[in-house]
Amino acid sequence: MESTMSNSVSNGVVAEIITSDVKKKVGLNPRNGFVSMGGLLNNLKPKIVSGDFGYILEDVPHMSDYIHHLPTSTNPLQYNPAYSVVKQYFVDHDDSVAEKIVVHKNSPRGMHFRRAGPRQRVYFKSDEVRACIVTCGGLCPGLNTVIREIVCGLHHMYDVKAVLGIVGGYRGFYSKNTISLTPKVVNDIHKRGGTILGTSRGGHDTKKIVDNIEDRGINQVYIIGGDGTQKGAAVIFEEIRRRGLKVAVSGIPKTIDNDIPVIDKSFGFDTAVEEAQRAINAAHVEATSIENGIGLVKLMGRNSGFIAMYATLASRDVDCCLIPESPFYLEGPGGLFEYIEKRLKENGHMVIVIAEGAGQELLSESLHSTDQQDASGNKLLQDVGLWISQRIKDHFSKRSKMAINLKYIDLMYMIRAVPGNASDNVYCTLLAQSAVHGAMAGYTGFTVGPVNGRHAYIPFHRIIEKQHKVVITDRMWARLLSSTNQPSFLSTKDVIEAGKTENLLNC
Amino acid sequence: MESTMSNSVSNGVVAEIITSDVKKKVGLNPRNGFVSMGGLLNNLKPKIVSGDFGYILEDVPHMSDYIHHLPTSTNPLQYNPAYSVVKQYFVDHDDSVAEKIVVHKNSPRGMHFRRAGPRQRVYFKSDEVRACIVTCGGLCPGLNTVIREIVCGLHHMYDVKAVLGIVGGYRGFYSKNTISLTPKVVNDIHKRGGTILGTSRGGHDTKKIVDNIEDRGINQVYIIGGDGTQKGAAVIFEEIRRRGLKVAVSGIPKTIDNDIPVIDKSFGFDTAVEEAQRAINAAHVEATSIENGIGLVKLMGRNSGFIAMYATLASRDVDCCLIPESPFYLEGPGGLFEYIEKRLKENGHMVIVIAEGAGQELLSESLHSTDQQDASGNKLLQDVGLWISQRIKDHFSKRSKMAINLKYIDLMYMIRAVPGNASDNVYCTLLAQSAVHGAMAGYTGFTVGPVNGRHAYIPFHRIIEKQHKVVITDRMWARLLSSTNQPSFLSTKDVIEAGKTENLLNC
Amino acid sequence: MESTMSNSVSNGVVAEIITSDVKKKVGLNPRNGFVSMGGLLNNLKPKIVSGDFGYILEDVPHMSDYIHHLPTSTNPLQYNPAYSVVKQYFVDHDDSVAEKIVVHKNSPRGMHFRRAGPRQRVYFKSDEVRACIVTCGGLCPGLNTVIREIVCGLHHMYDVKAVLGIVGGYRGFYSKNTISLTPKVVNDIHKRGGTILGTSRGGHDTKKIVDNIEDRGINQVYIIGGDGTQKGAAVIFEEIRRRGLKVAVSGIPKTIDNDIPVIDKSFGFDTAVEEAQRAINAAHVEATSIENGIGLVKLMGRNSGFIAMYATLASRDVDCCLIPESPFYLEGPGGLFEYIEKRLKENGHMVIVIAEGAGQELLSESLHSTDQQDASGNKLLQDVGLWISQRIKDHFSKRSKMAINLKYIDLMYMIRAVPGNASDNVYCTLLAQSAVHGAMAGYTGFTVGPVNGRHAYIPFHRIIEKQHKVVITDRMWARLLSSTNQPSFLSTKDVIEAGKTENLLNC
Amino acid sequence: MESTMSNSVSNGVVAEIITSDVKKKVGLNPRNGFVSMGGLLNNLKPKIVSGDFGYILEDVPHMSDYIHHLPTSTNPLQYNPAYSVVKQYFVDHDDSVAEKIVVHKNSPRGMHFRRAGPRQRVYFKSDEVRACIVTCGGLCPGLNTVIREIVCGLHHMYDVKAVLGIVGGYRGFYSKNTISLTPKVVNDIHKRGGTILGTSRGGHDTKKIVDNIEDRGINQVYIIGGDGTQKGAAVIFEEIRRRGLKVAVSGIPKTIDNDIPVIDKSFGFDTAVEEAQRAINAAHVEATSIENGIGLVKLMGRNSGFIAMYATLASRDVDCCLIPESPFYLEGPGGLFEYIEKRLKENGHMVIVIAEGAGQELLSESLHSTDQQDASGNKLLQDVGLWISQRIKDHFSKRSKMAINLKYIDLMYMIRAVPGNASDNVYCTLLAQSAVHGAMAGYTGFTVGPVNGRHAYIPFHRIIEKQHKVVITDRMWARLLSSTNQPSFLSTKDVIEAGKTENLLNC
Repeated sequence: MESTMSNSVSNGVVAEIITSDVKKKVGLNPRNGFVSMGGLLNNLKPKIVSGDFGYILEDVPHMSDYIHHLPTSTNPLQYNPAYSVVKQYFVDHDDSVAEKIVVHKNSPRGMHFRRAGPRQRVYFKSDEVRACIVTCGGLCPGLNTVIREIVCGLHHMYDVKAVLGIVGGYRGFYSKNTISLTPKVVNDIHKRGGTILGTSRGGHDTKKIVDNIEDRGINQVYIIGGDGTQKGAAVIFEEIRRRGLKVAVSGIPKTIDNDIPVIDKSFGFDTAVEEAQRAINAAHVEATSIENGIGLVKLMGRNSGFIAMYATLASRDVDCCLIPESPFYLEGPGGLFEYIEKRLKENGHMVIVIAEGAGQELLSESLHSTDQQDASGNKLLQDVGLWISQRIKDHFSKRSKMAINLKYIDLMYMIRAVPGNASDNVYCTLLAQSAVHGAMAGYTGFTVGPVNGRHAYIPFHRIIEKQHKVVITDRMWARLLSSTNQPSFLSTKDVIEAGKTENLLNC
Repeated sequence: MESTMSNSVSNGVVAEIITSDVKKKVGLNPRNGFVSMGGLLNNLKPKIVSGDFGYILEDVPHMSDYIHHLPTSTNPLQYNPAYSVVKQYFVDHDDSVAEKIVVHKNSPRGMHFRRAGPRQRVYFKSDEVRACIVTCGGLCPGLNTVIREIVCGLHHMYDVKAVLGIVGGYRGFYSKNTISLTPKVVNDIHKRGGTILGTSRGGHDTKKIVDNIEDRGINQVYIIGGDGTQKGAAVIFEEIRRRGLKVAVSGIPKTIDNDIPVIDKSFGFDTAVEEAQRAINAAHVEATSIENGIGLVKLMGRNSGFIAMYATLASRDVDCCLIPESPFYLEGPGGLFEYIEKRLKENGHMVIVIAEGAGQELLSESLHSTDQQDASGNKLLQDVGLWISQRIKDHFSKRSKMAINLKYIDLMYMIRAVPGNASDNVYCTLLAQSAVHGAMAGYTGFTVGPVNGRHAYIPFHRIIEKQHKVVITDRMWARLLSSTNQPSFLSTKDVIEAGKTENLLNC
Repeated sequence: MESTMSNSVSNGVVAEIITSDVKKKVGLNPRNGFVSMGGLLNNLKPKIVSGDFGYILEDVPHMSDYIHHLPTSTNPLQYNPAYSVVKQYFVDHDDSVAEKIVVHKNSPRGMHFRRAGPRQRVYFKSDEVRACIVTCGGLCPGLNTVIREIVCGLHHMYDVKAVLGIVGGYRGFYSKNTISLTPKVVNDIHKRGGTILGTSRGGHDTKKIVDNIEDRGINQVYIIGGDGTQKGAAVIFEEIRRRGLKVAVSGIPKTIDNDIPVIDKSFGFDTAVEEAQRAINAAHVEATSIENGIGLVKLMGRNSGFIAMYATLASRDVDCCLIPESPFYLEGPGGLFEYIEKRLKENGHMVIVIAEGAGQELLSESLHSTDQQDASGNKLLQDVGLWISQRIKDHFSKRSKMAINLKYIDLMYMIRAVPGNASDNVYCTLLAQSAVHGAMAGYTGFTVGPVNGRHAYIPFHRIIEKQHKVVITDRMWARLLSSTNQPSFLSTKDVIEAGKTENLLNC
Repeated sequence: MESTMSNSVSNGVVAEIITSDVKKKVGLNPRNGFVSMGGLLNNLKPKIVSGDFGYILEDVPHMSDYIHHLPTSTNPLQYNPAYSVVKQYFVDHDDSVAEKIVVHKNSPRGMHFRRAGPRQRVYFKSDEVRACIVTCGGLCPGLNTVIREIVCGLHHMYDVKAVLGIVGGYRGFYSKNTISLTPKVVNDIHKRGGTILGTSRGGHDTKKIVDNIEDRGINQVYIIGGDGTQKGAAVIFEEIRRRGLKVAVSGIPKTIDNDIPVIDKSFGFDTAVEEAQRAINAAHVEATSIENGIGLVKLMGRNSGFIAMYATLASRDVDCCLIPESPFYLEGPGGLFEYIEKRLKENGHMVIVIAEGAGQELLSESLHSTDQQDASGNKLLQDVGLWISQRIKDHFSKRSKMAINLKYIDLMYMIRAVPGNASDNVYCTLLAQSAVHGAMAGYTGFTVGPVNGRHAYIPFHRIIEKQHKVVITDRMWARLLSSTNQPSFLSTKDVIEAGKTENLLNC
C-alpha cells in the first residue's frame, strides 16, 4: 500500500533534508513561497513512497494533488492504429525505475523514479489542450528535434492541434508574439542546428509569465533549458500550483555540458563530442607539422568537463586535458609548464584540450576579475584559452628559451550549432514523447530523462540541487590520465576533497 | 552468505532449464563434452549465487574453478600514477549489476551480473602474459578501436608486452602467421574502418585452435565477433577447461545489427545508424524530385531490424520500414502495394527502408530458394532489395498502370566500413578495458558489455542462447508505426505470437 | 570589321559542315524546319565572324536576328549600388574567349566564343520580363543552386519579379501547374540536393511547349538539362524563332558525367567525385579486411568515364578502373581475370571501379539484350556492376578455384542526390548569372559555360553535336593507368581508333 | 625563328622593366648577385621568345643555359606500359599556353608560357637522380598529396629511387636529418592533413642550403611554399646557377589564400572554402537563434580576401564580408555600425565574415601597433576578429543602447589542417607530375601551375613580383556586394585607386 511522505514516519528524515536543500537551491523566500492550498501538502515536500526491502519511490507532483475531482478519459492512443496492436502499450501504474543498479546481494533496494510513458487514463481531452513550448539558454544540438517531437507527439498521438511556440526564451511569454506550431511547420527542423523558437538568457519574471499563461489559456507548458531554466520552471510550477491552475509544467533538461544529475546523459552531448573530435584532429595536425608544435583546443564545459574528457578519450590524440573539476597549476614541479617541456622533448609536439571553465581560480588571480554573472546567472568566465595561450607563450619565450609554436583553436560555437546526430535525434524523440505522455497523464512539476537507460519522471529538485561533475577520483578520469599520461596535478588534500562526491556515470 | 548453484536447492530448477538450453544452442554432444576435472562442476552449469529478497547473481567462470592453488599478486594498477590517486579504483568484490530495473515496489530483486572492472588481486604476472586477439565475421565500425584498446590496456595498465594478432579470423590460429601488436602499431588504427587483423567467416576447428594456443604459450584469448563467433569462443573455453589450461578466454560481442541479447547496445551500432541516415536522405531527395518517386533503401539487419528502425526514427523521412521481425505482404487490402499507391496519391513520393532479412518468407516462396548457409552458419539471404524493387515495378507497370520512379540504394557495405564515431570509440574503449581487467583477474569464459549502462561480465550462454530482436508489440515499434503511418501488416495471430517475446530495449 | 557567315566566302565550308551535322543531330526534318523569317539567315547556319591571323568567332543567335527594331534600354545594373562602383562592369562588346590556348608561336588564332556577362543595353524592361525555369533529366548536385541564382539574379540585378518554375521537366509545360519563384522561396534551396522543381525524362512536345510559352506570355526560358534536354532546347528555340516570338531561350548544361563538350567542366562534377571517393574508401576497407578481398564500386558514367577516372586519381586506392571509353575483356592473357588473379596474389586484395556504361558490349553479348532506350532517349543499360560481380565470382569459384570475397557497392543514387559543394555552388552562381545577363541582352538559342576558365555563350549545336569523352590515348588516362597499374586492355587497332578523337581536357 | 631576349631589340623594354622589378623583389644586391657564368646571359633576364602577330613566350631557365654539352637520353616513359599506348604523350617542344584568352578579333596574341609535361629527351638518367623535397610556411590542404605525387611520379614514371625529405622547412637543409621517401612511406599520406615533412617559417640561409645540396649530391630540388618561400627558391636557383651545378630547382606554389598571381588557383583553396562554409553555417545558426544575434567568422586571408569572398558566395548566408582589399570604416554614415544596426532592425540577425588581414589600418590606429614581421617576413597581424568583436560590442552597449548578441568563431587553424578534397587531390597530382617532368627535362628556376586550365612552367619572378588580390572594382566583388547587400565602403578615390590593378580571375 502506498504511503505518501506526509504520513510516513520512517522516511521523514530523508524528506526533510531534501526539502531544505531544495528551498535553498531554487532561491525562494520561504516567507512568501508556500501558501498551502486546499489543505494539500507543502509543494516542495518530495512525494515519497516506500516499499519492501528498502524500496523508495521519489514521485513527481500530479495535478490531482491540489485540484480535486479532476475528470479523466480514456487515452486516445488506444484507438491509434499504430499503437492498438501493441500489447501492454500503457505503462503499468506501479512501474518504477531503479536509480542504483550496482548492488550487493544484501543491499537495500534504494531510490526509484516513476517510469515515463503513456497511461491508460488522461487528464486532458484532446481539444481542450493548449500547449506551449519555450527554449532558454545556450544552443545545443537536438533542440529543434525536441520541439518537433513535442509538436508531432501531441498531434499524432493525442490529436492535440493547439501548440504555441514562445519566441526568444522566458521573456517571450510577455514581450513577444507566439508562433503556431504544426507538424508541417516543424517537419524539417530536426535537420537544422539552433532553435527555431529563438532563445535568450534570463528574462524570468514568474508573475508575468504565469499571468500570461493564464491569459492565453495555456494548460501544458514545455520548458527546454539548463539548470537555471529548470529552476525557473520549478518556480513557475509553484506559482501555478499556488493559484490552483489546471496547467501541467514539464521540463526537458538541456545542457550540452552533460552537467545535469540523475539522468544518464543530456541530449546533444554525443553530437558535441563528435564535433569536438574534429577540432582535436586539426590541433593534432597543426602540432605534428611543426617543431615543438602545441595544438590547444578550447571546448565547452563551464563547470563540468565531460565534453573535454569524452572527446579526449574518443580521439586518443590528446596529451593533456584540463577540466574545471581538476585543479591544476602552471609553474614548478608537477605543473603544466614542466609537463609541456617534458612532452615536447619526448615527442616534439603535443595537444592540449581545455574546458572553458578550467583553471578559473588561476585566471582570477592573474586578472583580479570580479565575479560577474550573465543573464542566466552563470558566472561570466574569462577566456581561459586566450589566457593560457599567452601564459604558455610567455613562459617558453621568456623563461625556458624554448621556441614553441602554439596554435589555438576555439570551437565552442561551432560545436553547439550543429544539428543532432542520429543517436541524439532518437533520444530527443523519446524525451519529447515522455514529456507529452506525462503532461497528458496529469503529472506536473517534473522533468524527463533516462535513468540507467529507462526514461523516468524526475522531480525538479533532484536535477537542480547540484550539478553532475566529472569525479576525478573515479575510474573514468583515471582512464583519461592513463591515456594522456598527464600528471594528476593533485595534492593529497584534493583527493580527499574530491572523493566525497559520488560517481554517477557509467563505467 | 554466498551459495553456489551446486548446493542451492531453491534455484536448481532455473539452473537446469538454462543448462539444457545452452547445451542445445552451443551444439555440443553432452556425451563427450563434459569431463569433470578436479572434482569441479560441470562447466555448463551456470554459476548461480542467490541473495536476499530474490536476488540472483549469474556469475562467470573463473580459472580457479578448475585449477587449484593459483597464485595471485597485487594489481599493478595500484602503482600506476594515473590510477593511484583514485579512491576505490578497484571494483568491490561483491558489486553486481541488476538486469531488471523497471520494478514495482514489491517485486523480487531478480537476476544480476558481476560488475566489470579491475580487481585488487590479479592471476597473471605482467611478464607472464601472452595474449592474442582475433576478429571474426563481418566488419563493424569500432573493430580497430577494440583491438587498439586491448593492446593499450594490457600495455599501459598491466605492463603486458606480448600481444599477438591472429590474422584472418579463427582459421588464422592454424593457417597464418601472427603479427605482433604494440601500442605503436595500433596507435592510429581507430581512425580507420575495418580490422587490421583481417577477418573471415567459419574456420572454427576447436582442436586445432586450442592446440595452437597451447603451442604458442598463449594464456589470454580475446575473441571479437558475433553470436556464431561467441559460440565458438564458448567451445574453445570448454576445451581449454577440459585440458585444465591456465588460459583466460574473453569474448567481445560484435554485431552491427545490435542483435546480441542482455547488453544495452552493441558497438558500431550508433555509427551504423548515423551512416544509414545518409542513404535515407539521398533516397528522400531522389523520391521528392520526380513524380511518383519511390526511394528504396536496403540496410543491414539479417534477423533484427534495429538499424532500420533507429535510422527511420532518426531521419523522420521514411514512409515505410520493413524488418525481419514484422511479417508483411504485398498484395490485397492492408498490403504493401495498396499502401504505396495510397501514399503516392497523397504525397507524390515515398521512402521505403528495408532490412536485408525482411520478407525472406515471401522471397523464398517467389524463388523456391533452398536454405543455404554461409561459412559462419548464417542463412544465405536472397537480395530482398532487388527482389522487392522488381515486384513493385512489376505491380505498378502491369497491374496498377501507375507510372512510378523507383530508385534503389544499397548502402550495406558503406555502412559497415566506416570508422567508429566518438560515442562508439569511447564505448569500445570501455569494452576492451573491461575484457582486459576480467582476464587479468582470472575470469574466463565470459563476454563483456553494458547492462543498463554498467559494464558487466556475462556468461557466454546468456548472449548466445537467443538473439535480441525488435519486439513489434512494444512501444518502440509503435512509435515507428506512428512516425511512418505505415500499416502494421499484422493479423491477430501475429500479435499473439509476437507478444510472447520480451522487450529488452530501453524505452 | 565584322563579317557574318553569309557573306564570308572563306569560312563557308566550315559553316556548311557544321550545319549539316547539326541538322542530323537535332533530328529536324529540313523540309519543314527552316522557314526564313524577315529575310534573315537560315537559323541553323552558325553565325561566324572572322578576324585577323585566323581569328574566328562562333557567335550565338540574337533576337534581333529575326525581329527588327527591337527597342533597348540602359542596363539597370548601372544604378545598382553593388555594381555602380565597378569600373568596366559591362563586358566589352568585342570580348571573345579563345577555345584553343595551347598554341605554337606561328599557329593561327582559331575559334572563339562570345564572352558572357552583362551588356550596357538590355532588350527587356524589368517589368516586362516573364521568365520560366525548367529542370530535366537525372539529378545532379547544384541543380537547386542554379535555380536559386537565376531567380535571385533576375530579381536583384534586373529587378525582375515574375519567375515561374515549370514543374516536373518538359511535360510540366503542358501538364502541370507552375509555381511562383521568389528570392524568399529559393532562399535555402542550395543547401538541399535534388531539384525543387522536380524533373522527368522525355515529355518533349515542341508544339505544345511553345504554345504554352506563348499562352503564358513567357519571354525568357531557362532550360537546365543534359544533352538530350539541350537538343530539345534547340528545337524549342527554332520554333520560337519560326514564330517570330520575342522570347530568349537559354540552356544551362547539366550532366553529372561531365560529358558536355566545349565547356571546361559541368556543374556537380566536383561534388560527385568527392562523394565517389567515399565509396572507394569503403570498398578499400572491405577489401583489405579479408583474404582475397575485392571491393567493386559502380559509379555514374553512361558514356563517359570522367567520374570514375577522377575518383580513381583522387583516392589512389584503386587497382582497376573500367570506363565506357576503354574496351576491356575478361578472359585470356591481358584480360581482367588474369589481372585480378595477379593482383590478389601480390597484394591479397584489390579495388575495382566501374562506370555504369563500361563493358556494355560484353554485357550485350552475354545477355542478348536489345537496344532499349529510356524516355530521354538514353540507351537503357544493363547493370554492369551486378553482371561483372557474378562473372568474377563464377570465374574464381569454377575455373580458378581461388576463394575470393567480393563486395559490391553501388553508390550511384547517393552521389547524385547530395547538395553541391562550395566550389560547385560558386560555379552554379556564375552559370546562372551568365544565362540571365545573356537573355537580358537579347541573346537566345545559347548555352553558357566556362571555356578555359572564362564564361562564354556557346551555340547549342556545339554542345549537342558530340559528347565529351575520356581520351584513352591521352596523358590523363596514362596517368590513371600508371597509378592503378592495370593493363590497358588495348589492341593496336583500339589505339589507332581512339587516337582520332581529340582531347579537350586540361592536362 | 626563335629569338631570345638578348638579341631581340623589340622586346628589350619589356624585359628590362621586369628585370628591375625582379631585382627589387627578390631582395638581391645587384653588386654581387649576377656574376655571368660561362659567357651566358645574366640570369635574371627573362627568356623571351617572340612570334607572329604579337606572340610572346616568356620561357623558363634550362640547365643547358649555363652548362654546356649536357648529355640527354630517351625519356623512359616511352617504355612504360601505362604510357606506351598513348599517342603524342610527349608535349610538343613548341607548345605554349596563352596567358590572355579574353581577346578581340584584332588583339595582338600576347604573353605565353611553356606548356608543362614530359619531353622526349631527359637530362637525367634514372639512377643518377637524387631528389629532395621541402615544405615551408603555413599548412595548406593538399601538401601531403604533392609530396606523395612527387615521390610516386619520380618512382613510377622515371624509375627514380633516391628521394629525400628535408625535415622542418628551409632550416632542415642544414640543421636536421633527412628522411628517405619511398612510395610505401607516402602511400596513405594524402588522406591526412598537414605535412609529414614538417614545416617552419624563415630559416633561409642560401649559402648553407646550397652547400648542403652540393654535399648531399642532390640534383633535383622541389620546394613547396608560398611567395616568401618561392623568393627563397629563386635565390637558391641563382646561387646554384652561379656555382654552375647540374641541379634543377622547381617550385610548387602553395598558398591557402590563393594570392599567387598568374596561376588559376592555388591548391588547397577549394578545400579551404568548403571548410569555411561550415563555420559560416554555424555562425548563421547562432545568429538566427537569438534576438539581434551577430555571427562573426574570421577566415584566412592575410593580404587577399579570396577565401572570405568565395565562402560568402558559396554559402549565401553572409550579410557582410570584410577583406583586406576593401577598406572599410566603422562609424558614421555608410560605416559598418550603421549597416549592422540597419540589418538587425530589418532581419533580427546577421552574419559577418572577416578575413584576418582586413581592416589592419583601423586596427593599427587603435592599437598603435608597430610593424612586426614573422619569420617568413609576413607582417604580424593583430587579431582583427577579437578587436572588431570588442568594437561592435562597445558601440552597441555604450552608444547605441541596442542589446546585441555576438558570437565569434575563429576557424583558421581548422581550415588549414584538413586533408585535400578530391578536386585538390587531383590538382596536386598534376602539379607534382608537371614539376617532375620539368626537372627531368632539364628545366630549372621554374614554378608550375595551371594558366587558363593548362599546366605551364612559369619563371619565378612572375609569381613573386606581386600578389594576386581581389579586385574590388571587378564583377566578382560586385556579385558579392549584390549577394550580401553590404555597403561598398568606397569613396571615389578608392575606386580610382583600385581600378588600376588588373583582374586576373575568371568571371
